[in-house]
Amino acid sequence: MLSVDEATRLVQSTAQPLHTETVPLAQALGRVLREPLHADRDFPPFDRVAMDGIALSYAAVAAGQQVFEIEHTQFAGQAPRPLHNPQAAIEIMTGAAMPPGTDAVVRYEDLLIAEDNNGRRTVTVQVPPTGPGFNVHRRASDRQQGELLLPAGTLLGPAEVAVAATIGAAQLLVSRAPRVAVVSTGDELVEVTETPLPHQIRRSNAQMLQAAAQQVGATAEAFHFNDDLDSLRAGLPALLQQFDAVLLSGGVSKGKADYLPQALRESGAEQIFHEVQQRPGKPFWFGRHPQGAVVFALPGNPVSTFVNYFRYAAPWLRAVQLPEPTFAAPTYAVLATDVVFKPKLTHFLLVSLQSSPTGQLLAYPERAHGSGDLASLLPSDGFLELPAEREQFAAGEVLPVWRFRW
Amino acid sequence: MLSVDEATRLVQSTAQPLHTETVPLAQALGRVLREPLHADRDFPPFDRVAMDGIALSYAAVAAGQQVFEIEHTQFAGQAPRPLHNPQAAIEIMTGAAMPPGTDAVVRYEDLLIAEDNNGRRTVTVQVPPTGPGFNVHRRASDRQQGELLLPAGTLLGPAEVAVAATIGAAQLLVSRAPRVAVVSTGDELVEVTETPLPHQIRRSNAQMLQAAAQQVGATAEAFHFNDDLDSLRAGLPALLQQFDAVLLSGGVSKGKADYLPQALRESGAEQIFHEVQQRPGKPFWFGRHPQGAVVFALPGNPVSTFVNYFRYAAPWLRAVQLPEPTFAAPTYAVLATDVVFKPKLTHFLLVSLQSSPTGQLLAYPERAHGSGDLASLLPSDGFLELPAEREQFAAGEVLPVWRFRW
Repeated sequence: MLSVDEATRLVQSTAQPLHTETVPLAQALGRVLREPLHADRDFPPFDRVAMDGIALSYAAVAAGQQVFEIEHTQFAGQAPRPLHNPQAAIEIMTGAAMPPGTDAVVRYEDLLIAEDNNGRRTVTVQVPPTGPGFNVHRRASDRQQGELLLPAGTLLGPAEVAVAATIGAAQLLVSRAPRVAVVSTGDELVEVTETPLPHQIRRSNAQMLQAAAQQVGATAEAFHFNDDLDSLRAGLPALLQQFDAVLLSGGVSKGKADYLPQALRESGAEQIFHEVQQRPGKPFWFGRHPQGAVVFALPGNPVSTFVNYFRYAAPWLRAVQLPEPTFAAPTYAVLATDVVFKPKLTHFLLVSLQSSPTGQLLAYPERAHGSGDLASLLPSDGFLELPAEREQFAAGEVLPVWRFRW
Repeated sequence: MLSVDEATRLVQSTAQPLHTETVPLAQALGRVLREPLHADRDFPPFDRVAMDGIALSYAAVAAGQQVFEIEHTQFAGQAPRPLHNPQAAIEIMTGAAMPPGTDAVVRYEDLLIAEDNNGRRTVTVQVPPTGPGFNVHRRASDRQQGELLLPAGTLLGPAEVAVAATIGAAQLLVSRAPRVAVVSTGDELVEVTETPLPHQIRRSNAQMLQAAAQQVGATAEAFHFNDDLDSLRAGLPALLQQFDAVLLSGGVSKGKADYLPQALRESGAEQIFHEVQQRPGKPFWFGRHPQGAVVFALPGNPVSTFVNYFRYAAPWLRAVQLPEPTFAAPTYAVLATDVVFKPKLTHFLLVSLQSSPTGQLLAYPERAHGSGDLASLLPSDGFLELPAEREQFAAGEVLPVWRFRW
């Protein structure tokens, strides 16, 4: 049976970059940039006043001058007027461009301002600037015109949106959102709005997968097929051709009603693997349609579906939005209690996570009654990946962690 | 001057729960539940078959029987038919309800199935069940009918959506989304689509705050006012009355064009504090309108705006969605290099974060040229909070961290 590492490698090998589209900046949050963005001007674009106060020539201060007449006042957004008299000063506001003839700023807190009967104002500098450029945010000191600011592949958060706005990128080339079909199977399932008979339950995996796909920027549509070969053969081919990914839950075990692998193959999907050396989720089937969707056929027990989605499908849905699909490095957490797990399977152990005052992420195993125990997900923040080779895991061990909650 | 802790406490004291609204389950992701949800039935609602195989009476196995005739086959979703002959068995699929007369399941892997010429099928049990309930997910073993599943105040992620679906909660009572007005000021600012003059720059804080507010489930509208008292007095009163929060950037320093505190007071907002012992963001002004919005008037330098939004406003916007506003406990990271910061101010230090193979979150300080250096946000994942009382911070110290990226 395939190891988790081998399955991961095979899933990753199918990731191809999605096409691109252009969106207005206001809709770009959470999307992945697919063009590099460069500085259109220097950052800052001018010698920028960093404090409210007066601008003057440092040479005058260096020569021992303490009292300066104010020639005029300059606000941010005004074109700078030069300093005419190098022994005078200009009252000036944060964000303004330094006027020609000035090279240092003294903030109000370090000045005394006096006004005579004719309205002429003078300032006495109490704390002199230490050199040219004092309280000046120098042109190009942060970034130079033409410098790369945001490489293609950047996930656009609030800071990136602000940078794009600054350089006038009102429209952004981003990855198209992955199109996901979510398919539930299982004749025991009824709609959320229905009252189930005693031996029935309501559908929940489809809603879970739709919500989870939204979290990584995908658009997800839900479908339901009955557990018979004809229903699956009739419905699957269109989905395999129209979507980037098809997420199925249920129908991949060894049961008599588990027609999915056969139906997928007959619908044109090629099996890449079936069954992984893991719990939960051993019957996971993975494949692809040569001209269409990648297929994650997840086991139908809710914890299996959930954990395997976050372990395999969510990273894939993120990766295909990148110009060169790459997968994020694992993060780690510290096991807080001893754990024994005997089967020769990689174990995805549900845990709640706490940031400890030692700066460590502590993982507390959550009690679960197996992969049917949907409610065991509620107190959990993610799952640890316990390797198949060992049975004993001691408190204090550091293990890869997959988070589904922050 | 107010300490960061005092400012935090005053900001928190203004958090009042927002009203509620009802949304369909498909739109509930990221919202905060405002009603408790209880189990409508037992979880699982019946003794549920956990493996594909045969169901039988354990008593027969205990009496030494190994070969069983198969009476019929039962799929998931079918009403269970009883086992007539206690020495026979029923072929059965995962997810089905246990038939009356059976109490244990033997999976296919532990059976041999034979069929005679008349189509009668028998199984030989090779690995006997160890007791009643074997491979059965017992009714009510996870949760009992009436048990609280999701308390009011739960943030709805994919797992919570699945649980709501299972109990038939097709409509959910959630917190109304916080309504946020984002206001930029500053005469040096032009629109993203305009080409700035040499002494102008494009607006970016408004786009940043709008995007950031979206991330916590708020709806945000943007406004711009010129830096003069009349414009502010004309525009602010309506915003203070119509929104839950008004986020402003710029206009709160000691500059000549910094009319905001006066304009806010004249528009009906009460000042709660002005200036906090922190960098960046010392001129932060905070207040509220008695019948309206809470006002976060953030300093306009982009790093100040950004950091103070995440330090004060984002937690507030999350808290007011809860039935009893509470603020999340801080998380911690380990400083990776020595840092010296001499001013008697709490320092919000931009850092990139890495999950180390020791399970620690390591914080690497990012070089920044002060609070005007917008681009310094790009490599940063968050900021450490260095207390005002000390100047020296050694590599290895554990400090509170505020993340804006995961």
